[in-house]
Amino acid sequence: MEKEQDASHGHLVIVGGSEDREDDKPILSRFIELSGGRDCSIAVITAASSIPRDVWPVYERAFADLGVTNMLPVHLSTRAQANDKGLAETVGQASGIFMTGGDQRRLLATIGGTELDAAMHKALKLRGACIGGTSAGASAMSGHMLAAGAVGLHPELGSVHLAAGLGFVQRVVIDQHFSERHRLSRLLTVVAQNPYLQGIGIDENTALVIERGGGIEVLGAGAVTIVDGRNMISNVADAEDRSCPQLVDVRLHLLPAGTRFQAGGEGSDVPQPLEDVFRNLIRRNPIS
Amino acid sequence: MEKEQDASHGHLVIVGGSEDREDDKPILSRFIELSGGRDCSIAVITAASSIPRDVWPVYERAFADLGVTNMLPVHLSTRAQANDKGLAETVGQASGIFMTGGDQRRLLATIGGTELDAAMHKALKLRGACIGGTSAGASAMSGHMLAAGAVGLHPELGSVHLAAGLGFVQRVVIDQHFSERHRLSRLLTVVAQNPYLQGIGIDENTALVIERGGGIEVLGAGAVTIVDGRNMISNVADAEDRSCPQLVDVRLHLLPAGTRFQAGGEGSDVPQPLEDVFRNLIRRNPIS
Repeated sequence: MEKEQDASHGHLVIVGGSEDREDDKPILSRFIELSGGRDCSIAVITAASSIPRDVWPVYERAFADLGVTNMLPVHLSTRAQANDKGLAETVGQASGIFMTGGDQRRLLATIGGTELDAAMHKALKLRGACIGGTSAGASAMSGHMLAAGAVGLHPELGSVHLAAGLGFVQRVVIDQHFSERHRLSRLLTVVAQNPYLQGIGIDENTALVIERGGGIEVLGAGAVTIVDGRNMISNVADAEDRSCPQLVDVRLHLLPAGTRFQAGGEGSDVPQPLEDVFRNLIRRNPIS
Repeated sequence: MEKEQDASHGHLVIVGGSEDREDDKPILSRFIELSGGRDCSIAVITAASSIPRDVWPVYERAFADLGVTNMLPVHLSTRAQANDKGLAETVGQASGIFMTGGDQRRLLATIGGTELDAAMHKALKLRGACIGGTSAGASAMSGHMLAAGAVGLHPELGSVHLAAGLGFVQRVVIDQHFSERHRLSRLLTVVAQNPYLQGIGIDENTALVIERGGGIEVLGAGAVTIVDGRNMISNVADAEDRSCPQLVDVRLHLLPAGTRFQAGGEGSDVPQPLEDVFRNLIRRNPIS
């Protein structure tokens, strides 16, 4: 695992689940490209899944199809394993680290705050590695993580639970399988109760690619929805638990696949209402 | 049909379909109340429906349960019938006029621009009658009417068709069965292509009640969603037909049942971002 991406500030590939793993695989292909190409070294963390040994072969085949030979499956079920310094160091040397789907609570319970967690942050921030995650692995990327919550027809106060995520991005909360599972109401619930978090909903077979210090891109079949409640006027403080809140002036952005925004220079085409969330997403956070 | 509501500037009761017609009937009850109470005279226009004689008994029973005795079913299938001056005059004397569900295109094809249409406007504007409509009868209320359109997971340019509606409210487009049928994407499509129309999505068993010159109220089981694209930045002008547009800064308002806003005076509690749409909804349009 020698390939390093010294010139890069690192990438995040945040996938809404159900990405193509059989055919053209545009998202996994981009993940490999951003990890350094077919000579990259990839670690696949299956800790979100209750059936890691069923999940791994799917990615093994997909990445092999893309020409990758240097792959390491990382099956973890205990924090002791995730605190193994040798393993953390090995994974931290990978040029691409991918987290599979499953349950983000399981993932965080196993790796949150461990040596492995720290090694992933170092890989991103010191070596410009590419960190990918799909479904549960996508939700886990934010500092405040959408842990669980019912999906109803309307927002419902108290129905969604946040937890501590891995924190590769801050001040956002990420939901996945977004349009397919009609999760806007759930994301609105989060934003209603946490207006300083911007909600990011990622569709299936769709990725939000973030180049830290660089720009963002939406890739795949669907869209990324951003819900911004910072100017919202609501009755949340006084409304009853389990009620549908009154929300006025939520800002909604829909970014279909193909959307690209770059920071600075002549390519700086970020629409003004997106500037804050854009700058926040591409911000290079310090090692915590 | 003698009861008049001279003091009123008229009400609109815009129902998202599937309103309770069996149990407490809060929406139909409010319609009767705004029509002058149990002594009111009600006309029920079934022209949206292809099975008007099945629809009518349901409302006949519901309104009878609410104590109304003066009811007129208005079954129309031709424009000639809708242009019958005697019928138009009779319906125009009703204190409440209710349009059932069905297909708003059928309704407009039959009554749009006829003597009956004019009589309904006069009843509202000159006598302060209450005009109600559910489902297709709700969509038909606006000047630009959402006539038909596929409901997909994302907005899709060119997939929704507008037509000329009855125009009891202007500068809006109304969709119904809104949350239940996941129609936000459809409404976003309309607003993306027609940013000066504000999208109003009304849930099932939920009503937007408008007192012209007075205020608005949301009644029933669900919510009213308002989509305001006037500040939107989009690529609609350049995007391909059938593509999902990029939309930045759509303003979304969610008004659950129980929401009430009044114009002027001490009860003037309309949040600033809602002021424009509020003023537009309660505006007393002249007889056209």
